[in-house]
Amino acid sequence: MAHKIILDTDPGIDDAMAIFFAFQSPDIEVLGLTTVYGNVPVTMAAQNALTLCEIAGKDIPVTKGVGMPWVGPESTYAHFVHGDYGFGHIKPEAPKTELDPRSSAQFIVDMARKYPGEITLVAIGPLGNLALALRLEPELPKLVKGVTIMGGAAFVRGNVTPLAEANIWNDAYAAEIVFGADWDLTMFGLDVTNDTPFSPSFVETLEAKNEKLGGFVKDTAQFYMDFYSANREDRVCFFHDAFPLAHLRHPELFELTEGHVRVGTGELDRGQTAVAPKGTTPSPLWNNANTIKVATKVDHAKLEQLFIDTYAL
Amino acid sequence: MAHKIILDTDPGIDDAMAIFFAFQSPDIEVLGLTTVYGNVPVTMAAQNALTLCEIAGKDIPVTKGVGMPWVGPESTYAHFVHGDYGFGHIKPEAPKTELDPRSSAQFIVDMARKYPGEITLVAIGPLGNLALALRLEPELPKLVKGVTIMGGAAFVRGNVTPLAEANIWNDAYAAEIVFGADWDLTMFGLDVTNDTPFSPSFVETLEAKNEKLGGFVKDTAQFYMDFYSANREDRVCFFHDAFPLAHLRHPELFELTEGHVRVGTGELDRGQTAVAPKGTTPSPLWNNANTIKVATKVDHAKLEQLFIDTYAL
Repeated sequence: MAHKIILDTDPGIDDAMAIFFAFQSPDIEVLGLTTVYGNVPVTMAAQNALTLCEIAGKDIPVTKGVGMPWVGPESTYAHFVHGDYGFGHIKPEAPKTELDPRSSAQFIVDMARKYPGEITLVAIGPLGNLALALRLEPELPKLVKGVTIMGGAAFVRGNVTPLAEANIWNDAYAAEIVFGADWDLTMFGLDVTNDTPFSPSFVETLEAKNEKLGGFVKDTAQFYMDFYSANREDRVCFFHDAFPLAHLRHPELFELTEGHVRVGTGELDRGQTAVAPKGTTPSPLWNNANTIKVATKVDHAKLEQLFIDTYAL
Repeated sequence: MAHKIILDTDPGIDDAMAIFFAFQSPDIEVLGLTTVYGNVPVTMAAQNALTLCEIAGKDIPVTKGVGMPWVGPESTYAHFVHGDYGFGHIKPEAPKTELDPRSSAQFIVDMARKYPGEITLVAIGPLGNLALALRLEPELPKLVKGVTIMGGAAFVRGNVTPLAEANIWNDAYAAEIVFGADWDLTMFGLDVTNDTPFSPSFVETLEAKNEKLGGFVKDTAQFYMDFYSANREDRVCFFHDAFPLAHLRHPELFELTEGHVRVGTGELDRGQTAVAPKGTTPSPLWNNANTIKVATKVDHAKLEQLFIDTYAL
């Protein structure tokens, strides 16, 4: 039986790679792409999601979601990572297809009510849509199967600040709401994603296996590799967003640990995912913290092969 | 030439072990013990420092310092770690000697003016005295040779909270002042001290080598080991406070790295020593952060031998 998912996304180069991976996976049924601001403004994220569906020939709902953080002003955007339009050097043509008229949060709630207990929410951008959905439908945790997110840095350094990863930093208050909700949540943060570099030959292989989708990933990844390679000797990039999808299909590739998580919302610790490993006796501030699963290790060779084999389908 | 030091301390079991190590070191000249609240209230810390001098037959100034944090109310004390009187099961007799009438901060300033450029401040408790000394004499950084502290957790988990080590957590605002001052500061935090357990046979060897001082350490350490061994299989304890003193004499036993440090003063991140490794490009919040040295590794076998050999002198 296929995994029913909603993919909450802010495309984004690694988002594109992850979305195509999901589309190519025979055992994943993508009910819709719900977009959110993050790598790019939300209007661009929504347009880009439509573009990716058109490239893949996939006719599924795409929604536009929240465009600013739960608390505080609109973010700046990391054009130096994902390019001016979210796809590196590529300026996509305007999509011909149209958005579903619902908000991302409402779409999530509608689908969860339609398929109670069946859907995994896969969130690979900031967590505003999921937080909003929890306010629209407080019973949402009982209506979904689980939540997997790309975000955070549990036991390693951040990337936006020494403490915080970009998705969580972008909407720290929303993350505290989502991490605090009573559902089965698994976090794929920099602990695994930043430990797993992908080389130019990897994206060339994706293109060789799948000219259209792999070729698009290869083309957009050039800009992305320029960014990631600026301060290191080898040329690499990181496909953060594909990790929770790979885990859904092949959990045996990952090591997880359990911990109690809180999210920093102060000045210095904004977006820090402060995890107290299960069984430790932390401060009372963690007493009511939710228990989540945190990915700490992945079999890189098998993960790479999974991506290649799936693009080849 | 001997290292002139002022030892700022809150005895405390590992403080006692560190103080005796300093007293036994032929190449360390302890100008005075300046006490601070921390493991115990400051009045008890001052009495305990006198007691330790009496046991060791050491006639040097002992001062009483600050008794509460820079900001916020008086702390609670970790009697479950150091016992009701700071020395495990032992209730020390009232000391016969008397305190120097000066505050700890004033004593630090006076000595720095007397021996400009010669003194290393070794702080193994919360950092209130050093912060206060910086306010009494803003030129203090130019008047001392350097500062080494036991405190913090740069790249590892804390012990009071998942983010914070006890000394820094106890007086986070003072720590931000001390870490931010323009002096040569080296931090020995949980990165090394919590990675270096000492066994019952180690403290028995200390006693065998030095019945009076090593015997006192062994006796007090029993309570301390009860605490540290509650959640692990082996029986151990951690002599955090002796590390900066060992480094002063044998820097070759340690690996250090440089980083830009800020100290959390929020609710969740209180006392977190947030280090951005030198050469990384962190958030603007770290732009004006001071550069410090952080101990990341120690040769445990040689460190243990150094302690034993010094107690044997």
